[in-house]
Amino acid sequence: MRISELERRSGVPSATIKYYLREGLLPPGELTSTTQAQYDDDHVTRLRLVRALVGPAGLSIARTREVLRIIDRPTDDLFSALGEVQHVINDEQEETDDAAAHALIDRAGWLIDPASPEIGALAAALRALDDAGFEVPDGVMKTYIAATGSIASAELAHMSPHRPDALRYVVLGTILAGPLIAVMRRLAEQDAALRRLAPPDDA
Amino acid sequence: MRISELERRSGVPSATIKYYLREGLLPPGELTSTTQAQYDDDHVTRLRLVRALVGPAGLSIARTREVLRIIDRPTDDLFSALGEVQHVINDEQEETDDAAAHALIDRAGWLIDPASPEIGALAAALRALDDAGFEVPDGVMKTYIAATGSIASAELAHMSPHRPDALRYVVLGTILAGPLIAVMRRLAEQDAALRRLAPPDDA
Repeated sequence: MRISELERRSGVPSATIKYYLREGLLPPGELTSTTQAQYDDDHVTRLRLVRALVGPAGLSIARTREVLRIIDRPTDDLFSALGEVQHVINDEQEETDDAAAHALIDRAGWLIDPASPEIGALAAALRALDDAGFEVPDGVMKTYIAATGSIASAELAHMSPHRPDALRYVVLGTILAGPLIAVMRRLAEQDAALRRLAPPDDA
Repeated sequence: MRISELERRSGVPSATIKYYLREGLLPPGELTSTTQAQYDDDHVTRLRLVRALVGPAGLSIARTREVLRIIDRPTDDLFSALGEVQHVINDEQEETDDAAAHALIDRAGWLIDPASPEIGALAAALRALDDAGFEVPDGVMKTYIAATGSIASAELAHMSPHRPDALRYVVLGTILAGPLIAVMRRLAEQDAALRRLAPPDDA
C-alpha cells in the first residue's frame, strides 16, 4: 500500500509516519520508484504499537526505539529483558538516598536485584511524597504492598515463558498496563469518594 | 532568609526558584530593597511541594499552578475538588470512542460521573493496549479491578472530611501516590519474575 493508505489504516498522519521512518521506529517501505514506497500489514501493526508507546505510556522517541529493539531481538531470557525494560523506563533517574526505598522493599519482602534502577525510582517517588509533606498512612501502605503484589502475581501467572509471544507480552505489559492501572485507581477512588463523601440525594 | 539560604534549605537552584516566582508557583518574598527579598519557612515548604509535583508526578508548570490553586482555596467540598484534580490531570485527553471504557466501568460496578475526564483516559489506555496487540487476560483484568478497588477503599478509609488538611490530602494523594504505586507494581513484578522465571542457583 502507499503511504496515504497506511495513514488511513493506522490513523497516524503521514507527516508523523515520515518522522517515525526517519527516526528508525518503522522499517522503510519497499521502494517502487525514487519517490514512492510500498508498505504492508506489518507496517500498520508496527505503527499502532509505536503510537501506543509514545501515547498513553508517554515514552520518548529514544526510549520507544530501545523498547522496540528489546522486543525485536530473539531471546529466551525474559528475566533479563524485563530488567532491560526497567532500565529504559528509568534512565533519567536522579541520584537519591535509597534508605527509605530499601526499607519499603524489605517490609514487602520483595526479592530485588540490588542494581535495579527501580530502587532509585521508588526512592524518588517516596521523596516526592515527603517533599509535599504527605505521609502515606501505615494501613494504606500495607494495602499498596498487598495490591501491587496481587497484580504482579496475576500478571506472571498468565505468563508462560514458553508462549511464542512471551517477550512481547512481558515488555508491553510492563509498559502499557501501567497507565491502565493508574486510571483504574483514580476511577475506583471516584467511586469510593462518591459513596463516602457525596451528600445523600434524599437527605 | 535570602534566596541563597532558600536555595540551600530547599535544594532547589536559585535560577529555578526565580522561574517558579515568575510563573506564580511561589508567592513573592518581602522586598527589603529594590534588589533583595526575604523568604520564610512557608517558601521552603511550598518549594518542596512544587518540586514534588513537577518531578515524579511529571506535571507541567501550568498544571502545577492549577493544582496549587485547588489546594489553596478554602472549601469543604472534597468531592468537587477531586473532580477538579481529575480534570487537571486529563486536560490534554484526545477524543476517543469510550465504549470499551464504559464496559469496564460497568463490569467493575463503579459509580462514575458521566462527565468525568477519567473515562476518556481509561479509553485511551485501553486503546493503547489494543493498538499494541496486547490483550489483558480476563483473570488479570479481574485482579486489576479488585486491587485498584482495595487501594481506593484503603485510601478513602483513612480520609476524614473533617481533618483540617483533608483537601490537601485528597489532592496530593491522588497525584503523588500514582508514581509510587506504579513503581511498586514493577518491583512486585520483578519479585514475581525472579521467583518464577530465573534459573535456580543450584540447578
